[in-house]
Amino acid sequence: MERHYFDWAATAIPDIDTINAVNDPACVPFGNPSSIHHTEGKIARQALEDARSSCARTLGVKPEELYFTSGGTESNAIVLFSLLARPRRYAASDLIKQPGAADTGAVFLYSSAEHPSIRENAAVLEQLGIPCAPIGVAKDGRVSEAKLEKALEKNANTKMAAIMAVNNETGAINDVKALSAVIRKKNKNIHIHCDAVQALGKIKLDFYGWGIDSASFSAHKIGGSRGCGLLWLKAPLTPLIHGGSQENKIRPGTENTQGAISLANVMEKSVLQNTTSLNEYKEASERIKTLILKLQKSGLFIPIPSDREAEDSRFSPWILQCAFKNKSGKIIPGEVMVRVLDEKGFAVSTGSACSSADKKRPVLEAMGLDKELSFGGIRISQGCSTTMKEINLLADAITALLITL
Amino acid sequence: MERHYFDWAATAIPDIDTINAVNDPACVPFGNPSSIHHTEGKIARQALEDARSSCARTLGVKPEELYFTSGGTESNAIVLFSLLARPRRYAASDLIKQPGAADTGAVFLYSSAEHPSIRENAAVLEQLGIPCAPIGVAKDGRVSEAKLEKALEKNANTKMAAIMAVNNETGAINDVKALSAVIRKKNKNIHIHCDAVQALGKIKLDFYGWGIDSASFSAHKIGGSRGCGLLWLKAPLTPLIHGGSQENKIRPGTENTQGAISLANVMEKSVLQNTTSLNEYKEASERIKTLILKLQKSGLFIPIPSDREAEDSRFSPWILQCAFKNKSGKIIPGEVMVRVLDEKGFAVSTGSACSSADKKRPVLEAMGLDKELSFGGIRISQGCSTTMKEINLLADAITALLITL
Repeated sequence: MERHYFDWAATAIPDIDTINAVNDPACVPFGNPSSIHHTEGKIARQALEDARSSCARTLGVKPEELYFTSGGTESNAIVLFSLLARPRRYAASDLIKQPGAADTGAVFLYSSAEHPSIRENAAVLEQLGIPCAPIGVAKDGRVSEAKLEKALEKNANTKMAAIMAVNNETGAINDVKALSAVIRKKNKNIHIHCDAVQALGKIKLDFYGWGIDSASFSAHKIGGSRGCGLLWLKAPLTPLIHGGSQENKIRPGTENTQGAISLANVMEKSVLQNTTSLNEYKEASERIKTLILKLQKSGLFIPIPSDREAEDSRFSPWILQCAFKNKSGKIIPGEVMVRVLDEKGFAVSTGSACSSADKKRPVLEAMGLDKELSFGGIRISQGCSTTMKEINLLADAITALLITL
Repeated sequence: MERHYFDWAATAIPDIDTINAVNDPACVPFGNPSSIHHTEGKIARQALEDARSSCARTLGVKPEELYFTSGGTESNAIVLFSLLARPRRYAASDLIKQPGAADTGAVFLYSSAEHPSIRENAAVLEQLGIPCAPIGVAKDGRVSEAKLEKALEKNANTKMAAIMAVNNETGAINDVKALSAVIRKKNKNIHIHCDAVQALGKIKLDFYGWGIDSASFSAHKIGGSRGCGLLWLKAPLTPLIHGGSQENKIRPGTENTQGAISLANVMEKSVLQNTTSLNEYKEASERIKTLILKLQKSGLFIPIPSDREAEDSRFSPWILQCAFKNKSGKIIPGEVMVRVLDEKGFAVSTGSACSSADKKRPVLEAMGLDKELSFGGIRISQGCSTTMKEINLLADAITALLITL
């Protein structure tokens, strides 16, 4: 059976040209980039630094602000756990709530729709004595300026805030620039972190313009190798985990030269083609509009949030979260939709692959959805090789299925 | 110029056959192994579990005891930082020294010759209130049973101990089984962790027989992909870092299927061929013996430790640490030796690539070497494709060089 892949937000179909290029041993020197005293090491170091410079050019940042990691999850963790490393700029008592001390509120604020690698680690920090608090999102899953302002007023001791650029389940785009301005108005020194994993190569990025301090990326979400990511830091931080002097001591462990080169190549291709020229963004917008309009005709389609329109600048065109009713008006469980679509040759998902084993939908709950609707949600995500033909096939397949369920 | 690579302990020459095999898209399914509801995800999950089962067969452990990580450094960090995660089996007050409380000694013991990913993270734990103490090593760089016993007596509150199998700078092999018995005699419940990165495929491993609780491995040290490692845990632990339900919640982040398959393949090849049959071990021993005997003839060769013999079961035949004197009897700085050998086509290193930027030699200092000798140390490490011809060329090159320096 012909397969049609609509789970690009979980992982992209690899960019075979790029992957093959970096699998050529002549292209990737094997030496350890930290073996700085011999030729093999120096050649590898140069290749790694070239990859870093390429990533920096693509992102419009300085090479020395970029650190290669094992992925988006690790990039996020490095930033969050730096709070636990008790950086010199803070006294321990500024971060860890002492028993009996007055409540000065949360040290770390995060939007309640963040990826598990932010949300779940906030719970860990909280357990270790660093007070954390979620910033509620609006019904459309985006952080509202009003709610952010309230959270900042309530938590005068805030040292760090995390606001993702594009939500991995709904495609909701936060106005990071405006939100960052709200934060800076209250307190200039708050470290603003942005999980940009679903934004890279999808929407236009401008970290200096947004006024943030750090951002996370993952290679495999844009067609690069698994096990490679990037962390942008405007200024170095104190990491919790040590173990080697690699990556300017921000990320220990032998450098993944092949992963870094693959990331640089795929970023150049994906970011410059998709978002700078905006051609691919326009095409993706056309495809998702077609899909939504076609599904609306069934009368059984529920976009999530319910007011998401076929053309809607609040959402990334690459991700659509939605639910379906059967003929009797009952919401079809997301797992059922995913299974029957899979049987017809279409790969879609419920929520995040990272939390698929948990059977919880915290992002949808944060948007105020009731349990039935949130468990009805499926995620349809497209990528650079998705065609209008595939979109039409998917719409037809869903429409045909709904009559039978 | 023909190059001869003698820095396998920093990173191995990749096993091109294995790497090429896993670069075939037909061999590595691209789906996200945690996208468990559709075909692409299920195929990837199966491939990942097959790789895990293969690693388990090779190591003689159960598949459910193995967790894929981004490398040896991360595997070590997961184990160490579990102390900070306040696992349920301990009360917080058992781990974190409370201000004013009586000194009950170290919670974490580690041999003073450990890799930076153990040693430097012990310093982080100490800073966060978890008392840590090094176990001194003997002059040969191995942990002595007597010193271990003393350390255990002095630190009755010990919850975890780390003893590496093979030292990355000197090749010193610890008798992990005997040392583990010493620990168990004092306290059955101490978690014994073993950094086995330089032992995998090099010496025979028997974790159940050794009586330990966890061990770390790295793919690229035996010819596999960069950015992939393994953690063996006899029983699950509470990790500090969360962020997804992958790897049974021990290691969050999208699974690196390609890295896992490459690791499984290269482990099967390397571990079974090198250490079970012991053929490669014997050949490596012959080669290092030839090298040492040839270098001894110069009269300017100082093995580290000084009593390391040409055939010496205390040391891995894959790693030799040594220094050289010039004609005037002055010790030649290691950096000079590495540079001039590099100019002649030979890649050797000073110490660990992981700490190459630091210009410190803590492992050699822990063995009681004076500063001059420790800065004279170079590491010559060989691998599965090193030939006797290359060993002879290296010995001749060093001998010829010594007359000129």
